[in-house]
Amino acid sequence: MEIIHSGSSCDAGKQQMKKDAQDASVEGSLKKIKHKFIVMSGKGGVGKTSTSVNLAIALSNKGFKVGLMDVDLHGPDIPRMLGLNGMLDLSKNHKLAPMKYSEKLSAVSIEALTPNKDDAIIWRGPIKYSAIKQFIGDVDWGELDFLIIDSPPGTGDEPLTVAQTITDAKAIIVTTPQEVSLADVRKSISFCKTVKMEIFGLIENMSWFICPHCNKSIDLFGTGGGEKTALNTGVDFLGKIPFDQNVVSCGDSGISLIDKHPDSPVSKAFGSIAEKIGKLAEK
Amino acid sequence: MEIIHSGSSCDAGKQQMKKDAQDASVEGSLKKIKHKFIVMSGKGGVGKTSTSVNLAIALSNKGFKVGLMDVDLHGPDIPRMLGLNGMLDLSKNHKLAPMKYSEKLSAVSIEALTPNKDDAIIWRGPIKYSAIKQFIGDVDWGELDFLIIDSPPGTGDEPLTVAQTITDAKAIIVTTPQEVSLADVRKSISFCKTVKMEIFGLIENMSWFICPHCNKSIDLFGTGGGEKTALNTGVDFLGKIPFDQNVVSCGDSGISLIDKHPDSPVSKAFGSIAEKIGKLAEK
Repeated sequence: MEIIHSGSSCDAGKQQMKKDAQDASVEGSLKKIKHKFIVMSGKGGVGKTSTSVNLAIALSNKGFKVGLMDVDLHGPDIPRMLGLNGMLDLSKNHKLAPMKYSEKLSAVSIEALTPNKDDAIIWRGPIKYSAIKQFIGDVDWGELDFLIIDSPPGTGDEPLTVAQTITDAKAIIVTTPQEVSLADVRKSISFCKTVKMEIFGLIENMSWFICPHCNKSIDLFGTGGGEKTALNTGVDFLGKIPFDQNVVSCGDSGISLIDKHPDSPVSKAFGSIAEKIGKLAEK
Repeated sequence: MEIIHSGSSCDAGKQQMKKDAQDASVEGSLKKIKHKFIVMSGKGGVGKTSTSVNLAIALSNKGFKVGLMDVDLHGPDIPRMLGLNGMLDLSKNHKLAPMKYSEKLSAVSIEALTPNKDDAIIWRGPIKYSAIKQFIGDVDWGELDFLIIDSPPGTGDEPLTVAQTITDAKAIIVTTPQEVSLADVRKSISFCKTVKMEIFGLIENMSWFICPHCNKSIDLFGTGGGEKTALNTGVDFLGKIPFDQNVVSCGDSGISLIDKHPDSPVSKAFGSIAEKIGKLAEK
């Protein structure tokens, strides 16, 4: 668990130089990116990754240059959801070239550095910290309007590393409406306050569902809890997104829901949230 | 990130003694527990915690003495789902007394050590490791037939610590049927193989849903993918559990679904899985 440095002071000096060089790379990458968002959730399975993917596509469809960084190291689903296979290449300047979804949207995930996609990444915290710093500093992101960071649920090493490394990142918190999920969202809000990360807003996902047989609305996980929590905690409410089986099937087959079903309530909801985020770029 | 011990050899000796004493406590607790299961998932939100809770209740209803250990440190939902409030007390032998759900079922969660339930646990890996060891060694679990351990999604510090500390723990892997979830399950299986943890079986959750308006069946997340994955990977398939809004409402209000709706398909599915697990105790 503990890394003990017992080397000479010369080794320590080399370590420090390596650290300084990495910090400089990270800083170099970050200053070319105008706005950074981390998509967080207290609980898993609230649709955080599909939110990250759909927001990134919606923003890129508006003409912004967008990067999508997958720091969910144990469950990296971004490449599958974007239909991207293969590994990361080296770019001209000896950095890693992100995968291209389109001219406007590029992505990086540990999945694209793992030859066997079924292998588990069994890493403890310190290695995760270092991997995330490399995802920023060693990747040739180029000039971006927006970087969307998909993090694993909870308030552990991954979001903490992002908060400490990208100090101007803003949080978008995703929840489903039930109390068990909201209780964990309050922890995410407490996390942001503790690490002094601005909260851009809260999204309530899977707010309702239309039965494909009878077309009646069903509150799978209750309803309205996200909006109420936002109000009670003074966080901006960004919108409600319904549960749609197309999100599942598009995610599984790596097809963009927004491009395939542009008029669906889900696509419209993401479009309107992307509108709010896009306004930041005009400022 | 790194803990550097620069103390004298006397300090190092004390550290070692403390570690040896903790290891002895952990061993003492574990040898009184007959069967240990860790409930894992690759992806979040597949119903891992409700599976842990319902399996524990189903086993205790069969007369077994059951402990439920919540190692999802960032999203500890077990106490809320069991309707347990309050903090852990000290037992007669100066260990922590687990919360009592019933005579047969006791539980431990970080939530019961946190005065403000909305505070986030912002811990990096090494502290988690130490907390989980304390959950075993410093808790007065007593004699148990079964210990069910609810872990966070993924293959990080928490399941790794359990695998290394409880070497005879068996894994129960929970998934939903869609491909994105199954891809992460294959990582959980790879994790178990790597750390040499026996896989007891796979459960497919949220396999179908009956519309409350028209009573027709809906495959919210596709169907059958869990069973197929079990078959392909040589893992025992333990059963399918439907999505039921009562699971959400019971979880939110801390009421046992199995006790409130004993004849529901969900309760029956958990009963039949508990039957399979219970057979271990007869051996």
